[in-house]
Amino acid sequence: MHKQTFADAQHWPANVLAQDCPSRVILQHVTSRWGTLILIALAEDTLRFANLRRRVQGISERMLAQTLQVLESDGLVHRHAHDVVPPHVDYRLTPLGFEVAARVIDLARWIEGNLDRLKQEGQTAP
Amino acid sequence: MHKQTFADAQHWPANVLAQDCPSRVILQHVTSRWGTLILIALAEDTLRFANLRRRVQGISERMLAQTLQVLESDGLVHRHAHDVVPPHVDYRLTPLGFEVAARVIDLARWIEGNLDRLKQEGQTAP
Repeated sequence: MHKQTFADAQHWPANVLAQDCPSRVILQHVTSRWGTLILIALAEDTLRFANLRRRVQGISERMLAQTLQVLESDGLVHRHAHDVVPPHVDYRLTPLGFEVAARVIDLARWIEGNLDRLKQEGQTAP
Repeated sequence: MHKQTFADAQHWPANVLAQDCPSRVILQHVTSRWGTLILIALAEDTLRFANLRRRVQGISERMLAQTLQVLESDGLVHRHAHDVVPPHVDYRLTPLGFEVAARVIDLARWIEGNLDRLKQEGQTAP
């Protein structure tokens, strides 16, 4: 996931189909391979790094760290370092993060709930 | 976008967080960099290849062809070759494609409509 900035933020109205619209940048972060799954996992629970990694099966430490950083920069994830010894850090969605995660979850639930139809209609099934 | 099959289709209940669940494969196709934008564009209109390419700004011919093929295999896009001379081919969503596109559009519209808040909360803004 390549980190981009709101360089061309004067785009109006926002339109993800437009190449330079900043909304496309956020969409790509939120729908990235791991971004999607991290949002879904954190919508269920505040989690420490290791637990989040167990929840999002198959993600590497590196990709988890990288993707969390991007989502944090977007204002969707909050990294909370508790002031305790030994250190305890956890990750949670921000209010904005919960709002966008709700849409991602809708999409995921639809796919999970329609796998049979997808298998029937598609040739992706064996 | 790597094409995968429903090899391990016995996964139940479907769960995108599980590494081998076929729902994750579909989710990755639908949320791929270009898959998302193609679904949004085709939800607006049936389009020929060249027009679709103009609509999804920045996509290469190769990525458009590849992504269309994946979405067709998933049963989400229908390639319609009209029986005329000269040849006329267009792409449209299937009924399943429209259903999943509605969720993708919800997500995109939310992002487009909340860019100001995202800019305020995030550090992605300049």
